[in-house]
Amino acid sequence: MSHPTSVAIAVPATTANIGPGFDCLGAALSLYNSFTFSQLDSSPTTVVIAATGAEAARVSTNASNLAYQAFAKLYQQIGQPIPSVNIDIQLGVPLARGLGSSATAIAAGVMGANVLAGSPLSLEAVVKLAVEIEGHPDNVVPALMGGCRLAATGVKGEWQICDIPWHPSIAAIAAIPNFELSTAEARSVLPNSYSRGDAIFNTAHLGLLLRGLETGNAAWLEAALQDRIHQPYRQALIPGYAAVQQAAIAAGAYGLVISGAGPTLLALAEVAQAEQVKTAIATSWNNQTIDAIVKVLQIDHQGAIAQF
Amino acid sequence: MSHPTSVAIAVPATTANIGPGFDCLGAALSLYNSFTFSQLDSSPTTVVIAATGAEAARVSTNASNLAYQAFAKLYQQIGQPIPSVNIDIQLGVPLARGLGSSATAIAAGVMGANVLAGSPLSLEAVVKLAVEIEGHPDNVVPALMGGCRLAATGVKGEWQICDIPWHPSIAAIAAIPNFELSTAEARSVLPNSYSRGDAIFNTAHLGLLLRGLETGNAAWLEAALQDRIHQPYRQALIPGYAAVQQAAIAAGAYGLVISGAGPTLLALAEVAQAEQVKTAIATSWNNQTIDAIVKVLQIDHQGAIAQF
Repeated sequence: MSHPTSVAIAVPATTANIGPGFDCLGAALSLYNSFTFSQLDSSPTTVVIAATGAEAARVSTNASNLAYQAFAKLYQQIGQPIPSVNIDIQLGVPLARGLGSSATAIAAGVMGANVLAGSPLSLEAVVKLAVEIEGHPDNVVPALMGGCRLAATGVKGEWQICDIPWHPSIAAIAAIPNFELSTAEARSVLPNSYSRGDAIFNTAHLGLLLRGLETGNAAWLEAALQDRIHQPYRQALIPGYAAVQQAAIAAGAYGLVISGAGPTLLALAEVAQAEQVKTAIATSWNNQTIDAIVKVLQIDHQGAIAQF
Repeated sequence: MSHPTSVAIAVPATTANIGPGFDCLGAALSLYNSFTFSQLDSSPTTVVIAATGAEAARVSTNASNLAYQAFAKLYQQIGQPIPSVNIDIQLGVPLARGLGSSATAIAAGVMGANVLAGSPLSLEAVVKLAVEIEGHPDNVVPALMGGCRLAATGVKGEWQICDIPWHPSIAAIAAIPNFELSTAEARSVLPNSYSRGDAIFNTAHLGLLLRGLETGNAAWLEAALQDRIHQPYRQALIPGYAAVQQAAIAAGAYGLVISGAGPTLLALAEVAQAEQVKTAIATSWNNQTIDAIVKVLQIDHQGAIAQF
């Protein structure tokens, strides 16, 4: 057979929500996990998984591994037997911090399986399957396609996904604290209903955010990063949030938002200000004796890349 | 003195909301009212108002006239006495139909007064005063500046206004029925709170709408014109809405929305389809024995224009 028997997939981290874009907006960041899938001849079907990098010990190395689950799902979808496989994982994206580490595994699994199976599915079908596995498009879509993406339902309930232009002058500074916040807990603090004013507030600010991201207009970005749907309720779950936000803005950031369900905080700032925003955030959390890694990131425009 | 003593202001009609953009989005349309302000020498201060065009008899011709009120407000703001003035109004925008006829009067009043006073205020300050008089920016901002505009509040409570690019392939078909709907009544049917799902729905669809308007992407526009904040509650106030919507979409429209607080309905369609959408809408309302004027319009990119 002429299919590749081994493929390495590099998948970017992603940040969902970005302030007012709760549950619809996500962007790929220049921080990566790498997954190498190598077909094995062994029978019956086996899976061998090894992980390296920070927190590698916490990655499941049996069949419950998320990358393997996604890998298997693609073979089920195309009606082919799941081959025995070795998966080598190199972790660059911190786990369970609101940076889409799960989405990297799902994106790699479906994309890796598709390559080893001889690419029976189009990129569009791969994206669709990944969204089904993840349950929402906010992270897996930018993880696979790169860039900033917005998803909304079409009249038949299908996902319509559009690209959101991102001005090259805008950097993302990710502040990743050394504690976790479960998505379930972050969801549990949200109200079930919102005033008409709050609903309109987020709609208007999402619109302004898209124009700010496209143009780099500082006044629009500063106004647009406000949100009334999730952040006011989740802030209390992240120690130091208010001080870090204040420090970031004082250092020149347009604003600071919760990345995904947190606890990572994401500041947007002009590239020229990014290093001083990074320093201000690191100092602020350090003063509060909270361990955190702070990284200046760019938007990743490639998405997941397969090498074989 | 060297100031002009007479000025004619042409102001475009405007459509607010455009589906998911409730209370934040508005666009200027190629349909105009014209207001000529001619200073009089008479003392004490007098105002003489004449109106021509459809429904001219309903325009107030005393000091309560909205264009005069706005005219007077500008002189108050700059601390100068209000001059005696003759106002000649030529109506092209139907009154009280959700096409921003009030905003044309406010825009013309402040702009006309500013010209006669020797242009003491910048365009920005004129826009700000007009927004204060109207109480919201959705109509007066595009009426004065042209194009499609979105407004959201900044961190200090000020309005941040951005332009929304509008692809030249997209036409607006306005279906103006021969009955009125008060904004107060249209507001009274709205709920005070919304589910989290509905709030997110409108946010996501507003984002998709902005990208659809910018690119002309048909799939995005078809999905994006959905709304869950106002239209589901207001439809019942507009006889024939569902049938007209169905007819417009069957004839090739991307979708159909309520213009402002109604009762005018606005279809968006590719320019090439606009005439057949117009015919379909006219036929549908005619079949329901509702009198309506249907017009194919373009986006006005100039806004209010002063000639003197």
